[in-house]
Amino acid sequence: MNIEKLIRDVPDFPKKGIVFKDVTPLLANRKALVQCADQLAALSPNDIKIDKVIGIEARGFILGGMIAERLGAGFVPVRKKGKLPSEVISKKYGLEYGEDTLQIHTDAIVAGEHILIHDDVLATGGTASAVCQLVEELGGIVVQCNFIMELDFLKGRDHLITNVASLINY
Amino acid sequence: MNIEKLIRDVPDFPKKGIVFKDVTPLLANRKALVQCADQLAALSPNDIKIDKVIGIEARGFILGGMIAERLGAGFVPVRKKGKLPSEVISKKYGLEYGEDTLQIHTDAIVAGEHILIHDDVLATGGTASAVCQLVEELGGIVVQCNFIMELDFLKGRDHLITNVASLINY
Repeated sequence: MNIEKLIRDVPDFPKKGIVFKDVTPLLANRKALVQCADQLAALSPNDIKIDKVIGIEARGFILGGMIAERLGAGFVPVRKKGKLPSEVISKKYGLEYGEDTLQIHTDAIVAGEHILIHDDVLATGGTASAVCQLVEELGGIVVQCNFIMELDFLKGRDHLITNVASLINY
Repeated sequence: MNIEKLIRDVPDFPKKGIVFKDVTPLLANRKALVQCADQLAALSPNDIKIDKVIGIEARGFILGGMIAERLGAGFVPVRKKGKLPSEVISKKYGLEYGEDTLQIHTDAIVAGEHILIHDDVLATGGTASAVCQLVEELGGIVVQCNFIMELDFLKGRDHLITNVASLINY
């Protein structure tokens, strides 16, 4: 199945001049949903056992759990400021359309654990880079950042010092 | 595995006097994560084929994908206002700590489809009830609302006219 055909272009979202890549038609297709999770899990380096998969709020949560299951890993959410209830560490980051703060529970990762970070889209790399820093502050080892889509022209990959994998490159 | 032991009580979150039931230690445990998805999928009425599983933003996204896969269904996100890029319908709802608006893409559900709605917690039922209304406006048939946890003392179940299932009742 060609999953790329299920990505919808939405012009002028979230603001004028931006063409948003909408992944919801892909997720709504039961075969594409499973294929996407299978392919993302298969991209994980097969010589390293992943302990935790991080999903970045909110779209990274959807396939994050499915990837974690395939890799025999636990799932850890990285969330926007104020959403996680227990003790957190925080990281500010610039993103394509502004600035924001991401947080992770301090007990979500044990030092030495191998971590895979998942989100739906790699744009400028600001978000994923902030998550890498959060993981490293907790002593985790980032094995890979993977994405359904990568917007090559924004060169987000250049801002990540870890292995980067994507299913679709624009 | 007793998944209830992996739910953490966080006092005074999101505001003083509320004891928040934190599901993140459960999600971080690889065995509990899979068990939870297995058990939730098993609660689905087995005489009705589910076409789509709806996950409610944001925590409902995590197990929503995993449940959809188990039921051979597609996944549909219901999101907070302004997050979905294409044409939507909206529903305001009262929730335990205020008011908000939820949205669904108008093309996310085809009339006549059988829908399972998933979220992590059933509290007052305001959120799930709003999602049921969104599904019905699109001609979908809500088969079940399921939850990891249900706060019985808030009587959310009484506000839902569909089948309701939970793994843990408080």
